[in-house]
Amino acid sequence: MKKKIQVNASIIIIGNEILSGRTQDTNTSSIALWLNSLGIKVEEVRVIPDIEESIVTTINKIRKKYTYVFTTGGIGPTHDDITAKSISKAFGLEYEIHKEAFKILENYYKPGEFNKGRQTMAWMPSNAKLILNPVSGAPGFIVENVFCLPGVPTILKSMLGGLNNKISGGEPIISFTINLSTMESEIAEPLKNVQKNNKEVEIGSYPFFKAGKLGVSIVMRSTDKYKIDDCTSQILDFVNKKKIVVISKN
Amino acid sequence: MKKKIQVNASIIIIGNEILSGRTQDTNTSSIALWLNSLGIKVEEVRVIPDIEESIVTTINKIRKKYTYVFTTGGIGPTHDDITAKSISKAFGLEYEIHKEAFKILENYYKPGEFNKGRQTMAWMPSNAKLILNPVSGAPGFIVENVFCLPGVPTILKSMLGGLNNKISGGEPIISFTINLSTMESEIAEPLKNVQKNNKEVEIGSYPFFKAGKLGVSIVMRSTDKYKIDDCTSQILDFVNKKKIVVISKN
Repeated sequence: MKKKIQVNASIIIIGNEILSGRTQDTNTSSIALWLNSLGIKVEEVRVIPDIEESIVTTINKIRKKYTYVFTTGGIGPTHDDITAKSISKAFGLEYEIHKEAFKILENYYKPGEFNKGRQTMAWMPSNAKLILNPVSGAPGFIVENVFCLPGVPTILKSMLGGLNNKISGGEPIISFTINLSTMESEIAEPLKNVQKNNKEVEIGSYPFFKAGKLGVSIVMRSTDKYKIDDCTSQILDFVNKKKIVVISKN
Repeated sequence: MKKKIQVNASIIIIGNEILSGRTQDTNTSSIALWLNSLGIKVEEVRVIPDIEESIVTTINKIRKKYTYVFTTGGIGPTHDDITAKSISKAFGLEYEIHKEAFKILENYYKPGEFNKGRQTMAWMPSNAKLILNPVSGAPGFIVENVFCLPGVPTILKSMLGGLNNKISGGEPIISFTINLSTMESEIAEPLKNVQKNNKEVEIGSYPFFKAGKLGVSIVMRSTDKYKIDDCTSQILDFVNKKKIVVISKN
């Protein structure tokens, strides 16, 4: 059996509004779930400010470490949107009008409405590939392994599907969760043993308080469904012996 | 007038569940808003996996770069809770039972319920200072400028207030928002000029879609209230000239 190599990724959230706490980032979760379905594991996320030097330095470190890098934010029309210019600098590329992006934007707006502010959204690193935006016209772009997406969550989500054929994934990562009516300390010892005996499955334990109920979610992640099945039965084995109630499995 | 130095911080979110997209991080926002009120600016956030090497390397890079570092996650009783051990390694400290933490936990649980799983929560870097937990007993801890907090958002929030006297803040960061019924491209040009003429105020522009309404939030941040007032009047000046409706200011 030929084994595919594990493909990995990093997400860089560009935005003072996340660092100030004003805005709650939801893009990490959207991108990570989508990448999981393509067999790509997110190994690091960084949130950095709208400062050219931070963007350039971070991009140049991160793009060499991971198969794919996704940035969000900073590609709109205002003065704090400096992602395209910073990415150009990071790669040593010209920052110039992208003809295709210009055409897309020109067609998107009504005649006379494609003003100077909007035209800045056509400025990109030279020879960038476009990421189409089915919601609001302005495209994202790709330079080598760096994919630049907008910060507005609904727009970002609408653009991910169009990238499926631009990315080579690995083996899809399968996840299975067992929700138990117990406390972490009750299961810590036997769960540790299951993890020790099943090193190719990543087992996480997360306490929850939902609708007044206390419980623990055990989450297994692996590219191998059979190994997850093995783990599941080993976990259910000690769960049954301890007479712990299984709330749900999914 | 004596000017206080700007104090900065970084947040390190430790947790596979955030990287996999399963859980939405909300701790960044809680910590950042609390730090703002103390005059501390969050300049970088990293999300890293539950892997000892990642934690050790990241902590040792980040703690030298920022005044304060806050970690969240990985201080519970299960096998994937490796923050305390990893922090010990990062600082070259013994990983051992913290007597005071042990006592707190022993008192917190009913007699006979302080089992082996729960006892692991008393293991910490040698001589760590405790961060009290008014909700669920298990304390966080401090080593030099690194503050280790739990991952469960409600518990984390309950522990922040107790840290106010353990941190020396800078000048409080004031924020003022003007919500406009317009599009970013309409105001990009004049807003750029306001930013150019007011370099000590950080001005951000964020499109929003709320309750079917399209708009832009202009957010000003500075330690100087008078400079924010200046900016506000310069922004309202062009807003009025362009006959843009102000939805709210706060």
